[in-house]
Amino acid sequence: MNSTVHILSGPNLNLLGTRESDIYGTLSLADIETMCRDECARLGFECVFQQTNHEGELVRFVQAAAGSAGLILNAAAYTHTSIALQDAIRAVQVPTIEVHLSNVFARETFRHHSYISPVAAGVICGFGANSYKLAISALADRLQ
Amino acid sequence: MNSTVHILSGPNLNLLGTRESDIYGTLSLADIETMCRDECARLGFECVFQQTNHEGELVRFVQAAAGSAGLILNAAAYTHTSIALQDAIRAVQVPTIEVHLSNVFARETFRHHSYISPVAAGVICGFGANSYKLAISALADRLQ
Amino acid sequence: MNSTVHILSGPNLNLLGTRESDIYGTLSLADIETMCRDECARLGFECVFQQTNHEGELVRFVQAAAGSAGLILNAAAYTHTSIALQDAIRAVQVPTIEVHLSNVFARETFRHHSYISPVAAGVICGFGANSYKLAISALADRLQ
Amino acid sequence: MNSTVHILSGPNLNLLGTRESDIYGTLSLADIETMCRDECARLGFECVFQQTNHEGELVRFVQAAAGSAGLILNAAAYTHTSIALQDAIRAVQVPTIEVHLSNVFARETFRHHSYISPVAAGVICGFGANSYKLAISALADRLQ
Amino acid sequence: MNSTVHILSGPNLNLLGTRESDIYGTLSLADIETMCRDECARLGFECVFQQTNHEGELVRFVQAAAGSAGLILNAAAYTHTSIALQDAIRAVQVPTIEVHLSNVFARETFRHHSYISPVAAGVICGFGANSYKLAISALADRLQ
Amino acid sequence: MNSTVHILSGPNLNLLGTRESDIYGTLSLADIETMCRDECARLGFECVFQQTNHEGELVRFVQAAAGSAGLILNAAAYTHTSIALQDAIRAVQVPTIEVHLSNVFARETFRHHSYISPVAAGVICGFGANSYKLAISALADRLQ
Amino acid sequence: MNSTVHILSGPNLNLLGTRESDIYGTLSLADIETMCRDECARLGFECVFQQTNHEGELVRFVQAAAGSAGLILNAAAYTHTSIALQDAIRAVQVPTIEVHLSNVFARETFRHHSYISPVAAGVICGFGANSYKLAISALADRLQ
Amino acid sequence: MNSTVHILSGPNLNLLGTRESDIYGTLSLADIETMCRDECARLGFECVFQQTNHEGELVRFVQAAAGSAGLILNAAAYTHTSIALQDAIRAVQVPTIEVHLSNVFARETFRHHSYISPVAAGVICGFGANSYKLAISALADRLQ
Amino acid sequence: MNSTVHILSGPNLNLLGTRESDIYGTLSLADIETMCRDECARLGFECVFQQTNHEGELVRFVQAAAGSAGLILNAAAYTHTSIALQDAIRAVQVPTIEVHLSNVFARETFRHHSYISPVAAGVICGFGANSYKLAISALADRLQ
Amino acid sequence: MNSTVHILSGPNLNLLGTRESDIYGTLSLADIETMCRDECARLGFECVFQQTNHEGELVRFVQAAAGSAGLILNAAAYTHTSIALQDAIRAVQVPTIEVHLSNVFARETFRHHSYISPVAAGVICGFGANSYKLAISALADRLQ
Amino acid sequence: MNSTVHILSGPNLNLLGTRESDIYGTLSLADIETMCRDECARLGFECVFQQTNHEGELVRFVQAAAGSAGLILNAAAYTHTSIALQDAIRAVQVPTIEVHLSNVFARETFRHHSYISPVAAGVICGFGANSYKLAISALADRLQ
Amino acid sequence: MNSTVHILSGPNLNLLGTRESDIYGTLSLADIETMCRDECARLGFECVFQQTNHEGELVRFVQAAAGSAGLILNAAAYTHTSIALQDAIRAVQVPTIEVHLSNVFARETFRHHSYISPVAAGVICGFGANSYKLAISALADRLQ
Repeated sequence: MNSTVHILSGPNLNLLGTRESDIYGTLSLADIETMCRDECARLGFECVFQQTNHEGELVRFVQAAAGSAGLILNAAAYTHTSIALQDAIRAVQVPTIEVHLSNVFARETFRHHSYISPVAAGVICGFGANSYKLAISALADRLQ
Repeated sequence: MNSTVHILSGPNLNLLGTRESDIYGTLSLADIETMCRDECARLGFECVFQQTNHEGELVRFVQAAAGSAGLILNAAAYTHTSIALQDAIRAVQVPTIEVHLSNVFARETFRHHSYISPVAAGVICGFGANSYKLAISALADRLQ
Repeated sequence: MNSTVHILSGPNLNLLGTRESDIYGTLSLADIETMCRDECARLGFECVFQQTNHEGELVRFVQAAAGSAGLILNAAAYTHTSIALQDAIRAVQVPTIEVHLSNVFARETFRHHSYISPVAAGVICGFGANSYKLAISALADRLQ
Repeated sequence: MNSTVHILSGPNLNLLGTRESDIYGTLSLADIETMCRDECARLGFECVFQQTNHEGELVRFVQAAAGSAGLILNAAAYTHTSIALQDAIRAVQVPTIEVHLSNVFARETFRHHSYISPVAAGVICGFGANSYKLAISALADRLQ
Repeated sequence: MNSTVHILSGPNLNLLGTRESDIYGTLSLADIETMCRDECARLGFECVFQQTNHEGELVRFVQAAAGSAGLILNAAAYTHTSIALQDAIRAVQVPTIEVHLSNVFARETFRHHSYISPVAAGVICGFGANSYKLAISALADRLQ
Repeated sequence: MNSTVHILSGPNLNLLGTRESDIYGTLSLADIETMCRDECARLGFECVFQQTNHEGELVRFVQAAAGSAGLILNAAAYTHTSIALQDAIRAVQVPTIEVHLSNVFARETFRHHSYISPVAAGVICGFGANSYKLAISALADRLQ
Repeated sequence: MNSTVHILSGPNLNLLGTRESDIYGTLSLADIETMCRDECARLGFECVFQQTNHEGELVRFVQAAAGSAGLILNAAAYTHTSIALQDAIRAVQVPTIEVHLSNVFARETFRHHSYISPVAAGVICGFGANSYKLAISALADRLQ
Repeated sequence: MNSTVHILSGPNLNLLGTRESDIYGTLSLADIETMCRDECARLGFECVFQQTNHEGELVRFVQAAAGSAGLILNAAAYTHTSIALQDAIRAVQVPTIEVHLSNVFARETFRHHSYISPVAAGVICGFGANSYKLAISALADRLQ
Repeated sequence: MNSTVHILSGPNLNLLGTRESDIYGTLSLADIETMCRDECARLGFECVFQQTNHEGELVRFVQAAAGSAGLILNAAAYTHTSIALQDAIRAVQVPTIEVHLSNVFARETFRHHSYISPVAAGVICGFGANSYKLAISALADRLQ
Repeated sequence: MNSTVHILSGPNLNLLGTRESDIYGTLSLADIETMCRDECARLGFECVFQQTNHEGELVRFVQAAAGSAGLILNAAAYTHTSIALQDAIRAVQVPTIEVHLSNVFARETFRHHSYISPVAAGVICGFGANSYKLAISALADRLQ
Repeated sequence: MNSTVHILSGPNLNLLGTRESDIYGTLSLADIETMCRDECARLGFECVFQQTNHEGELVRFVQAAAGSAGLILNAAAYTHTSIALQDAIRAVQVPTIEVHLSNVFARETFRHHSYISPVAAGVICGFGANSYKLAISALADRLQ
Repeated sequence: MNSTVHILSGPNLNLLGTRESDIYGTLSLADIETMCRDECARLGFECVFQQTNHEGELVRFVQAAAGSAGLILNAAAYTHTSIALQDAIRAVQVPTIEVHLSNVFARETFRHHSYISPVAAGVICGFGANSYKLAISALADRLQ
């Protein structure tokens, strides 16, 4: 196992900071990337940070994380509809932390079910960009 | 706001005119594009007309419509399964009209639920290619 | 087939313009009648325009449309509860367009199901009073 | 208890013989009335034969049957939606036979549930106009 | 706002006192009207007291209550099936109290859901004719 | 097509007259057989009258009715659970009338669904032993 | 039967007047107690007034009401989850009136079901602190 | 119709042989390709063998099979979520056989529903890589 | 383990070739038996071929397959209703292949659930009589 | 009432001791019969002990228990699917104890519902062969 | 493991013998305690016998049973609502027998589901106070 | 607002470290308390750390947190059943973080729904004792 952490973000997260800031906060995805790279550096992780709007591409990103130290995944809308992502996570067998910026359980019912959760090590949601940072920290604790 | 209308079509609509003409009519997508461009020209709209079989690409097309005069979306099968499209529409905050060639409510039950409808301004379905033209007209009325 | 269009409105639509204008707009039913009569005249249709709060009366109005050029029906609350209206439409076999002022799919769940839709030629909703005008236009296109 | 039988028919049955004869047969409601009056006469019953498209009127007809020998009710579409009819039947406590021309159980699911059945003495469906005649006969047997 | 209270009763309540007295009590609707008129007089209200078996008529009665001091509505069976009544109440924006003679929650499951409750100010049920009197009293308290 | 009517009864009907007479009446199955044979004779039918507690045997009885004038089937409990009986009826393509002694719709919910109804010509229930006689009469009418 | 009325309040009602006054009003529980004691005195009742956050304690309070003139119960959140309270009410066989400050039917779906209602004499909700007073009045009427 | 068979595999099947061999077996996708090409050659078919993680790409592959001898589709996770694939199969009207390596019906409930099955000619699952070979054989039998 | 294959067919399959040939094909069960015996002989299997309309008999046939090389089961209607068959298969622990002539997933919803599938090694459906032959072949592959 | 106890076992229980001993224990049905006969003898009961794989035969066994001291029924898989057994028990009106070897509530969901339970005097499950002995003892206590 | 049996009773069981004797019998909880102590003594068990109306207290009682010979639990209403009790039983890993006085499966639907059953060794219900005695006996058999 | 953090633990968490360590880890609640006190000290928080098995007590603990810097709540089993806790959190309006030791979404379905989540600021689960520490850190970030 190497020391790389793969941090993956799904559809529409490329718009962060420009849309619905009451739900998703004012930081852009670039801001979150910087924050994540800093936190990874502080904890001795390499950091792969990727975003895509394509389910199939996200599947490929997860597959590419095989053998890494951990996977932090904000699959956004695909969280609730993608069995393909669940299968990919199950296949790579890398500890995976599901994150969300908003508290999905306080939103529409269709956001309460996740195909990621049953195969994740843990779930962190509702802390805005900080959800990512907490996940990196959780991963570090877990790997000790 | 500029005066462009984005008219987007989803999966399998590239086959129009060649398949199941009893349900979808005999016009090809190119025919519909011509009809839409004419109607847009008549009403003073620029027209962006795009089709894709990829959910992620459709998400990108919706994102690209940000700041436009309006969005006319026939998401076809993704209508019923794509939360990602709903999130994209919500993000761009452009008036969106959902269209379908066939009357989806007279077909299988799984076609009765739409993730687009709750974030659309209105819905027009069942009028074949004319559904697109009515939507352009509705957009023009709305913008006056 | 004669050239008359029957435009029928259901319960509480007699209050239009006086109630909940954020949902239903500020035009009265008389205003809509004028708009519809003008549009019908422009397109060469005779126009029968009727409203009632009674389900049974609405059934009778639909029956009376037998043999006409088309039926435009805003059944309001009865949309969601009246099998009798579905049976009446099925019986008269006149092309029927279901219209709603508001986007019913963005409202309470019980407004998402329609007994009219499966027997309608098409559905138009969310464009306020303009929904009626678009329906007349759609009917004209269809009859050409 | 007098010897009158009330035979009531609900919405759209006034169209019988003119619509969807593959489902409902070719006899008109007047033909059925004649058949019923003959059968009643043969079995020594007075016959009240009424049709209405109004749920409320049908409730009134049921109430008017109080004290009679029996009630034969084809509530048509209201069968599936009218709790008011159930309450009326329960109130008048007259033996009630639910009839349908078609076999409702071989049609759409929403026609499988009846608010009349739980308070009816029996149910007869699927025999076209003959369903009424069988019901009169059943009532006569029951009253002996 | 004037000082009139509209007290409306729905289908089959015209039979009160003559049917199922174990559920609905022995008072007739005329008895209840007298009781209500007395209570209204005592509290300084004008009283409009109406009953109908027609949903559409009940809708009209509710519409006619616009601008009044309050509405007391026992919609009986229509409580559970009428979206039209909900729309009417929402439109007139008069404080509405839903009443029932019996405790509907101790009866069949289909009587547990009410389309009136979500738009009512409050609900009173299970106290026989006294439910009406308590509602008048509640209205008076509320208006102070 | 010959002139034989097959009248088949399912599980526990061999106990008729000895059990729960408030639900099923006081006639024994032998009494019903006599009544049926008389009615068949009167109407010019041969009569095959059989009872079994076995689902598989009932399937065989239905198969044996192939080519006959009609099938009258009281499948009792198997009505609600036997897809095999539905398949058998569909296979033999003989007009089938489903009968029940009691009004099954006034009993437990699990007795409201029938696998027989969708493939039956008609349904008669709630008239005790007379349900059988009405079915023979209905069959005769149908064959004329 | 003695002349005592037990008025019981469940979890979080000790916070009344300090929390969410838009839903629950500005009166404290002590204010309601005073109002109830006055009304009881006026109508000749002894008054036991108790609040607890514990389901088990509320069960004990209900048990202690055995033999009293009546029970007025605002079980708050336990209304929707406590079968134990239903069993207790059934056991003591004291006329019980369920009250709520807010109109629970206009709130979240999980507040629409009550385990108390089926064993209550009646239900009063939506009138703020006045719900208690109406219940005392209803009890007095009932006992006459 | 030409003699080509299109054999398509969906998301994560590129990982075969490297992941969860207890469920999916130890053969790689390349091994399966070889096996399929051999079997096709033996039976006189041309063979197109493709895999993709993208739903939209899989739609395109299906469209490209129009006019071919047959389609063998292991849509993996998209089996359960993709209406777009169903529409594509319906459009191309090529005999389609759905295959799965594992017995999906012995796994999680969400794998029991398939959008492919209703438009497939047949289904073969649970035989590992052999499922593909059986499908080729079935296609050959069917085409004779 | 011996080299016998038990091939079992359930209710109504004795009618094959004589009923609904559009669904089930034109081969009789005797034709299928011949085909199966030939295929078994070719692959070195003994063949036990049995049909019954009785669920209990089918259970006994499954029990009798204990210790054999494999079980091929077309339980027909009992597929969807028989937990007893599931228990029997689980008990004998013989590799079992579920077969159907038609594609059950393209038929009524109640045919989509199988009690056999979760305990089967695999499922083959939709290939007519050929489904049996493919199953024998699959069994042979599996046993190598 | 005589002093015979009928102890009936349903499908697949003839395999006891030879199958899945982790669920059902190592005793054979003959062992259980011996245990039951001993316990019956000790408590002064005659013992009828029968097993069958046929639902219809089990119905007959239950019918044969009419007039006996009690019925102990392990209907195995038919517990969950047989309305015919429920009807038979209701008909014979003999005190019936439902038994299961395993704790059915700790197994698949479809084993949690029983058609026997609502008409049984009591239920005993989870104690292996001892469930039968406890049932005999319970019957003896009940008859004192 | 010591030889103590913990026998725990939940809410409202302190009222036994004084309430609803048609459902729960005429013995008081003290009578049942005496019966249980006698049976425990006879079988060589120490006996801890406790009742509480508090879910949390019942959790504590279960926790206190850790290391004992067995737990007999009549959780009454908490049976159907308490996940906390399930967690406690799972934690202490003592053989637990769920008992009920009445046959809960013959009562309201909400009493058919138990959170205790899936973690219990067995279930005994419907034998009144004798359910406890049978459970002690079952525990003794199990421990031999 | 003061600087105290209330950290509350629900039923059975007093057993931590002694039960099911594969799910909940090997640390005792005292160990977690020490870890939390250290982390709070490090971040400048006062720490109130409490556990109870009583729902009502947990409600009281939440009420006592009014005015504090934040609430960290592991309600254990009450997470899924307690509306009273939701009401309490809503009332005190303190930022609340829901934590769980295990990943509840990978366990039984009844653990997937939480009454706490909709009123929580965020959710952290699956990280064992570290879930608490991450929550304290998240609270500190949030308060900056």
